[in-house]
Amino acid sequence: MSKLNVSIAGASGYTGGELLRILLSHPHVQILQVTSEKNAGKYVYKIHPNLRKSTMLKFCTIDELTPCDVLFLCLPHGETMHRIHEFLKLSPRIIDLSSDFRLNNSIDYKTWYDVEHPHPELLDQFVYGIPELHRDQMRQAQYISSAGCNATAAILPLYPLFKENIIAPQHTIIEVKASTSEAGHHPNPGSHHPERSGSIRAYKPYGHRHTAEILQELNPGENITAHLTVTALDRVRGIQAVCHTFLNTDTDEKTLWKTYRSTYGNEPFIRIINERDGIHRLPDPKILLGSNFCDIGFAKDPTSNRLIVYSALDNLVKGAAGQAVQALNIMNHWDETTALTFPGLHPV
Amino acid sequence: MSKLNVSIAGASGYTGGELLRILLSHPHVQILQVTSEKNAGKYVYKIHPNLRKSTMLKFCTIDELTPCDVLFLCLPHGETMHRIHEFLKLSPRIIDLSSDFRLNNSIDYKTWYDVEHPHPELLDQFVYGIPELHRDQMRQAQYISSAGCNATAAILPLYPLFKENIIAPQHTIIEVKASTSEAGHHPNPGSHHPERSGSIRAYKPYGHRHTAEILQELNPGENITAHLTVTALDRVRGIQAVCHTFLNTDTDEKTLWKTYRSTYGNEPFIRIINERDGIHRLPDPKILLGSNFCDIGFAKDPTSNRLIVYSALDNLVKGAAGQAVQALNIMNHWDETTALTFPGLHPV
Amino acid sequence: MSKLNVSIAGASGYTGGELLRILLSHPHVQILQVTSEKNAGKYVYKIHPNLRKSTMLKFCTIDELTPCDVLFLCLPHGETMHRIHEFLKLSPRIIDLSSDFRLNNSIDYKTWYDVEHPHPELLDQFVYGIPELHRDQMRQAQYISSAGCNATAAILPLYPLFKENIIAPQHTIIEVKASTSEAGHHPNPGSHHPERSGSIRAYKPYGHRHTAEILQELNPGENITAHLTVTALDRVRGIQAVCHTFLNTDTDEKTLWKTYRSTYGNEPFIRIINERDGIHRLPDPKILLGSNFCDIGFAKDPTSNRLIVYSALDNLVKGAAGQAVQALNIMNHWDETTALTFPGLHPV
Amino acid sequence: MSKLNVSIAGASGYTGGELLRILLSHPHVQILQVTSEKNAGKYVYKIHPNLRKSTMLKFCTIDELTPCDVLFLCLPHGETMHRIHEFLKLSPRIIDLSSDFRLNNSIDYKTWYDVEHPHPELLDQFVYGIPELHRDQMRQAQYISSAGCNATAAILPLYPLFKENIIAPQHTIIEVKASTSEAGHHPNPGSHHPERSGSIRAYKPYGHRHTAEILQELNPGENITAHLTVTALDRVRGIQAVCHTFLNTDTDEKTLWKTYRSTYGNEPFIRIINERDGIHRLPDPKILLGSNFCDIGFAKDPTSNRLIVYSALDNLVKGAAGQAVQALNIMNHWDETTALTFPGLHPV
Repeated sequence: MSKLNVSIAGASGYTGGELLRILLSHPHVQILQVTSEKNAGKYVYKIHPNLRKSTMLKFCTIDELTPCDVLFLCLPHGETMHRIHEFLKLSPRIIDLSSDFRLNNSIDYKTWYDVEHPHPELLDQFVYGIPELHRDQMRQAQYISSAGCNATAAILPLYPLFKENIIAPQHTIIEVKASTSEAGHHPNPGSHHPERSGSIRAYKPYGHRHTAEILQELNPGENITAHLTVTALDRVRGIQAVCHTFLNTDTDEKTLWKTYRSTYGNEPFIRIINERDGIHRLPDPKILLGSNFCDIGFAKDPTSNRLIVYSALDNLVKGAAGQAVQALNIMNHWDETTALTFPGLHPV
Repeated sequence: MSKLNVSIAGASGYTGGELLRILLSHPHVQILQVTSEKNAGKYVYKIHPNLRKSTMLKFCTIDELTPCDVLFLCLPHGETMHRIHEFLKLSPRIIDLSSDFRLNNSIDYKTWYDVEHPHPELLDQFVYGIPELHRDQMRQAQYISSAGCNATAAILPLYPLFKENIIAPQHTIIEVKASTSEAGHHPNPGSHHPERSGSIRAYKPYGHRHTAEILQELNPGENITAHLTVTALDRVRGIQAVCHTFLNTDTDEKTLWKTYRSTYGNEPFIRIINERDGIHRLPDPKILLGSNFCDIGFAKDPTSNRLIVYSALDNLVKGAAGQAVQALNIMNHWDETTALTFPGLHPV
Repeated sequence: MSKLNVSIAGASGYTGGELLRILLSHPHVQILQVTSEKNAGKYVYKIHPNLRKSTMLKFCTIDELTPCDVLFLCLPHGETMHRIHEFLKLSPRIIDLSSDFRLNNSIDYKTWYDVEHPHPELLDQFVYGIPELHRDQMRQAQYISSAGCNATAAILPLYPLFKENIIAPQHTIIEVKASTSEAGHHPNPGSHHPERSGSIRAYKPYGHRHTAEILQELNPGENITAHLTVTALDRVRGIQAVCHTFLNTDTDEKTLWKTYRSTYGNEPFIRIINERDGIHRLPDPKILLGSNFCDIGFAKDPTSNRLIVYSALDNLVKGAAGQAVQALNIMNHWDETTALTFPGLHPV
Repeated sequence: MSKLNVSIAGASGYTGGELLRILLSHPHVQILQVTSEKNAGKYVYKIHPNLRKSTMLKFCTIDELTPCDVLFLCLPHGETMHRIHEFLKLSPRIIDLSSDFRLNNSIDYKTWYDVEHPHPELLDQFVYGIPELHRDQMRQAQYISSAGCNATAAILPLYPLFKENIIAPQHTIIEVKASTSEAGHHPNPGSHHPERSGSIRAYKPYGHRHTAEILQELNPGENITAHLTVTALDRVRGIQAVCHTFLNTDTDEKTLWKTYRSTYGNEPFIRIINERDGIHRLPDPKILLGSNFCDIGFAKDPTSNRLIVYSALDNLVKGAAGQAVQALNIMNHWDETTALTFPGLHPV
């Protein structure tokens, strides 16, 4: 099989670097060009030191991009939407890892990003990039917009509950414990190690932009809405989402298992984790570094209808680059796990 | 002023060690005896290495205890309740840091600890040890039961809201981010560094015993109950509690400020923290190591009646030994901040 | 190509787990059996949670082992030497990851391990397992003894200097910064998270057993000996060795480069790292988690003949399981990098 | 006793903040003014959040400084030397925490800092600020130059050995494990949390400027010189220095103990730590956060004349602000431990 020519615009950031790492081991793909305006001309391994000896690629500028088979976009949020027509000319297929085409309508961009979307006509051409919800559309898609990391961590554990309508009319609270690589590679006073190390920082009590994706995909009812709170821990990678929700009174634990199994039983990258003993009982991002798994588990309070659902994932893999490659595989009708089989490390 | 003779039963654990550290700098107190069955005869600094050169005390056994003016009990939960009459004979005043006399009635012990309390008749003789709620009773008290660390972190931020009845009928969720010193000094497979470091562990999704104290002190209504979920992070000290709650629709931010200020404005160890800029906007335990402060802050979602209240404290200080010394100071009509003025470190 | 049947004795520890992770992705290998006396009958993923969904293997006991093509031994140090004849009967090829057959003569076992080796006659049948030094012997070998992690981290950076006799007669000091997974998976008071987290522990100022391997392989002269000091940091994986040495006066930086390049220029898993700018100038284990690379770099003091050589590696990969699989690949004349191409993560 | 009026120039950095923390609890001192050009007009607690509720001081500019009894200078290295005459006019006593007056002669500034010192005539008026070496001079001093943190960590453990001439003619290697607060509060790409967390960074293999202080104070001979290598760990505070040295052949362990005891036996802030069992056998900065202790311990290789000496301290306390206050206390003939009795935390 001849290889697809793939390029990455915006490859010097953390998401771009992770995408490179994964694509370099992809058997059906050849990396054509990777861009960085600031580092054009430099070897990729100068910026992504783990890739030394894995590639001799150098960064080029966006203006130097030539046509390719698939173009990944890892540019800062807000930039892609303005240049999208440049990119559409370069490649028949685009996978955008920014937030610029995730929402289905422009009103949501106004509400959550305070921006007039310059190309609302393109929004419905981008498939929202969570394969577990949109695999069939992806198979036909030209354009995919990869999901937000916190959104993925919230949507995957809650989706079966909302889809099956087994949530009681009480607000669902999603408490996301995030890590520092989410905020990108630009240093700032708050990311300075002495200030950041050891901190538990209330990052976004409310109003986090990924809330828009969560509401769009879960489509909750009026009395059953979902709220997102994001707290940033002292860790570089990995998300744990804790979803506090309440069930219809007739939902027992057996029904819950059935619900999760019927939704995710055949998913290659979802693992349902509920151990009764041992030290690994519920999802923990510690064992997921570098992996594309999203682990999901739950605990039902036996004295009430309260359900706590946990998820864990690597924000740069299942929350970004890995999920994007999963989409690429689906788009091309390849084995969905191609280049994504790294299982994570233990201990680490 | 002559000094009070103070002894500590169970001084080899983390709470006992922290109590020792604080009492060694207390001008009105002389430490008479400290017990450890396992380490009897050894210098205290062998177990608490920070106290080397601060004290030449050695551990003795409980049987060797002689009468004293105030006896602190830092024994494992479940042990004090059976031996309480021994201790009552030794000292006219007791401050118990275990959970054995925190709850006001024996039914709660059955429900939450699955134990028949052997001395229910003594339960109402112990004042619950949060000074901000029970200062007047403490002034007259002989016996004080120091509050649980997670309970303190949950009660202090929520108390003004429940007291003023400004909570809407929606369950309040308390998500506590805990640290590993909470679980004491006994190693186990789950506390082994390679397993524990870097983990985000779902410790108690529901059913945490401190819930009993929270419900007792907040006294919520039927539709406004409070639920506790505890997650253990990779840190040794410090708690951040995030309380997700909903307000009556007529409660604006100004009312909230007024509520918190009127409740806590004169409290020496509560700081209300809501900065609009900078990197220290909401409570973070990072800056509280060794300090007796409980920092409280809140964020109100402007698009709904949702309120997120944060608290942070050092579980071994305001959550245990520091709060116990605060109680000692109140009991003895000393300046409440005596020996408790260490402000925490920055950066650390 | 038909697959080799491979078994692992002692697969519940950290080295065994890592070996499993790597071998599960090895295209020429089929894992036949894995043993754990304590966990026999349990699924492997109960102990190595990262391998859930990667394998449905269960542990068996050593007594249940059947013949195989290659047997890996990951038993505790001191156990293999007594049972070696059992294992020799099971498999024509053995790769031992313990220390039991690393040293070439039994006197060294007496000196460094305080043990009479029960099978000194077998010592010279085991090839010492650093491919960069013994590749040719490995190609013919039946038995390989994988090198110690700290020994590997010390030998690889120093080998070119000692081999080329460019060291001046001044003792070489090797300061190894180790991590907690080195000490295995058994909890103890010193590995308890509250005690271990944040500590810089003087683990072995002198007398570390890996010194024996270092002296054996570097073969220093009388006035040029090498000393090992090991300090254990608060990290789970990864070693950085800093080798303090002094050069013959006529050795300039160009000669050093030539020496390292001529020794390691074609090595697939050695990277020479000396960047003049950027934030990744010298070897750092941070970017090597899960990878089989050993990064080496050096800095020569321009005002003296002092040379500081750095190495970094993942103690469980290049320091154990990865190096063992590298040996397996060499033994079988497969591409040496098979199943070992994971490049590490950045950032992490 | 009336209080001394004390001001701090450059109080927004980490050293200045720590100095403030300590001086706020000093019974003989009143803080008059604290400067920050950038934060002039802001409350101190906005920058040093741990001091909220401890002080309502605001920053002013250097130009606004009025005369005081003692002036502390915490300005960036290289700034004080040019403005020293301004400061001499403001206060009869100065304690400078920068490196600008640490070295006794201007040639060393040229060699190590590559700078022509503008006021070499003042160098011998500043006493080098390690009390354990220069207490008597401090008692008479007007001007003190506080020692470098890494220099303090290296000088204190080695001083007794060099003073007593029990070092053999072999170079001494000082390997300092440093933390990130040493580099100050300005963010840069290398201090960005995702890059810095988890890293072991070869910070200064050779040529660290504190070497100049070490050589000045230890005054080694030609064949017994000392070399400094600094590695920066993933921690905010605390230094561990490991000094690799070789003894004259007739020096046994008893002599070593005698040497250390006779030098430091009466020192209030030096603890000699060599435990045979337990988990706290040799110095570890973990238990020294916030404390002014310098812990020292050693291990002698019984098979050679090799000696490994360890020290640990908090770089912002004994390595900076605490040692400066210790000097203040000595200067003023106060109890040397005033305001410096915080013993550190365990566990933390």
